[in-house]
Amino acid sequence: MAAPSRTSVATARVEPRLTQPAYAVILAGGSGTRFWPASRQKRPKQLLAIAPGRDETLIAGAVRRLAPLCPPERVLIATGQHLRAATAQALPTLPESAFLGEPMPKNTAPCIAWATLKIALKDPRAVVIVVSSDQHIEDEPALLDALRRAAAQAEQGHIVTLGIQPTRPETGYGYLKQGAETEPGVHVVERFVEKPDAETAKSYLSRGGYFWNAGIFVFRADVMLEAVARHMPDLAAHLEELRRTLETAPEREAQATEALFAAAPAISIDYAIMEREPDLRMIACDPGWSDLGSWQAVWELSPKDAQGNATPKDSVLIDASGNLVVDLSRGGEGKQPKVFALLGVKDLCVIHADDAVLVLPRSEAQAVRDIVEQLNKRGRKDLF
Amino acid sequence: MAAPSRTSVATARVEPRLTQPAYAVILAGGSGTRFWPASRQKRPKQLLAIAPGRDETLIAGAVRRLAPLCPPERVLIATGQHLRAATAQALPTLPESAFLGEPMPKNTAPCIAWATLKIALKDPRAVVIVVSSDQHIEDEPALLDALRRAAAQAEQGHIVTLGIQPTRPETGYGYLKQGAETEPGVHVVERFVEKPDAETAKSYLSRGGYFWNAGIFVFRADVMLEAVARHMPDLAAHLEELRRTLETAPEREAQATEALFAAAPAISIDYAIMEREPDLRMIACDPGWSDLGSWQAVWELSPKDAQGNATPKDSVLIDASGNLVVDLSRGGEGKQPKVFALLGVKDLCVIHADDAVLVLPRSEAQAVRDIVEQLNKRGRKDLF
Repeated sequence: MAAPSRTSVATARVEPRLTQPAYAVILAGGSGTRFWPASRQKRPKQLLAIAPGRDETLIAGAVRRLAPLCPPERVLIATGQHLRAATAQALPTLPESAFLGEPMPKNTAPCIAWATLKIALKDPRAVVIVVSSDQHIEDEPALLDALRRAAAQAEQGHIVTLGIQPTRPETGYGYLKQGAETEPGVHVVERFVEKPDAETAKSYLSRGGYFWNAGIFVFRADVMLEAVARHMPDLAAHLEELRRTLETAPEREAQATEALFAAAPAISIDYAIMEREPDLRMIACDPGWSDLGSWQAVWELSPKDAQGNATPKDSVLIDASGNLVVDLSRGGEGKQPKVFALLGVKDLCVIHADDAVLVLPRSEAQAVRDIVEQLNKRGRKDLF
Repeated sequence: MAAPSRTSVATARVEPRLTQPAYAVILAGGSGTRFWPASRQKRPKQLLAIAPGRDETLIAGAVRRLAPLCPPERVLIATGQHLRAATAQALPTLPESAFLGEPMPKNTAPCIAWATLKIALKDPRAVVIVVSSDQHIEDEPALLDALRRAAAQAEQGHIVTLGIQPTRPETGYGYLKQGAETEPGVHVVERFVEKPDAETAKSYLSRGGYFWNAGIFVFRADVMLEAVARHMPDLAAHLEELRRTLETAPEREAQATEALFAAAPAISIDYAIMEREPDLRMIACDPGWSDLGSWQAVWELSPKDAQGNATPKDSVLIDASGNLVVDLSRGGEGKQPKVFALLGVKDLCVIHADDAVLVLPRSEAQAVRDIVEQLNKRGRKDLF
């Protein structure tokens, strides 16, 4: 059962052209512990430069990637208040106004609705592209191509999501079931599918027509606000109140925003809106997308030697295979990078930070959480 | 086949008393690569504080241990010229004159003969204790007791060696075959035995009467110089020349010493003299001796948790067993010690230095040499 090749997705189509640049809403609220000792509460995954071969933080990569569609003045970064400063520091080219600090975490629906309102106040018919800040894209032109086509659909009033061509029977992602084709390369989303078991994931891959849900959405601001009004009337009422506040007493914005979030349910945009939209559209693509979910994913994407080792250059590897070595303290304090010597070991992760060293089998990469939990129990808040 | 217990060595005897303090000749010429990344050419094993639970370098431990028998003014440290400064720095309580820099490495026989001559010039009948600088002794009173008895034998004109009670069928050491008992607790050495194979080592342990050769010798200076004259007449002639130089033109000492070493064969005291002495005496003892030959030996001697992990405190260990973690950069630069997190790994060595990190299975500890060889090939002399 070979995975479909990347080119199989391409279909004949007319090249779309946007009438104006789009807005980007980049979701950067995640904290995440799966990349300890790299990730910390105040330095979550999106602020790490862990994408193999890229010397930029994941969030900087997200902004850079979208730049051909969304110029800096049209980028909004939605993050937690406590991460706002660190996030702004990671994105020095963005204006201060680009950073939206959520008063409290309420999952993605309230946050996206809020950001969409802010955009709608400038231009109700603006096209908005929502992406995560902590994903990896191998084939950036393929992503941009799909987003351009999605934006063209959005301009016509559709809410569009990208469907990522699966390349393996992944059980860690949700899937989109592709429905009828509405025009070349554009399909209705028949339904959202929860993370499947291994058997089901295999059948999705062999049957075709199932795509990974990467949480990438494209819509016109006014269209989304109407959808919010349909599916989340309470939230819509609070949004309306915030709009009035901004028009009549803008100095009370923070207060009104806080009220909005306090009242909002903590719910994802998928559950609250997308799954309920009968005519959601999907553009299939294969941009080499990864959610970089663990050190295992970093190893998978990294360039490797013939023995499958992904290590800093100058490493000494003797009878070693399948290992991942990451040196987070590289280049610190003008010192020479550390040399890593691995002998007689297989499929290990060795992660070196200034204050911690992690060693575990790649197959246990998800268990990094347990370590952070241990540190928490010991009160070592300095370490996570 | 249980190993003989430590107490079985004790035999009835009269407590000896030395007529005067002994001299110590501490051999510190070794370079050794088996403790990389801790050991380096300019920081060999004896200059490392790797003895578990001891906060001193191995060589400082050797000097401290012998102090009840050999006061500082009677301690000679024989080391290479290139290590002389670093060695002196590690032993600040010793006078400058304690350090003998060998002009070139010629194994132990020339070096011991030379040091013995220096002592004989002060007191021909002085008792000399020769020990290595890089060994570990668990039961120091037991060692001192054996050395006192050996010194008493030496005063009577015997050359004496300590025989270490074997506690396992070790194939990495040479053995001494115990011969006839000359008086309680003192035996003739019947013969020296090369490193045995596993089968032979097992039979030594079960038959008894075989002891590890730890290279610890005790003799009177004049007696050793006579033995050198018997077995190494050429070296004896050069020693005689050096003696004359010291008496008539002491300013030419360096030159004469260099000539001595240049002419000397590179040969161990065991081969050159001890094995040829028909009446060599042996005192058996069980001082918890280890030559600390590798990281494996450090693990063996280290205090361990219930899962057999020997790690810095504050380590996070989840489903981890039998691991050794050593942080050589601990306490550096006033920083908090690094936290080591090991999850799902077994029987590994993780050694962290300022400029290198080593990961390998304990069972491969001897292969550290291969790593140093690799670094050598790459011209990374900064790292070994």
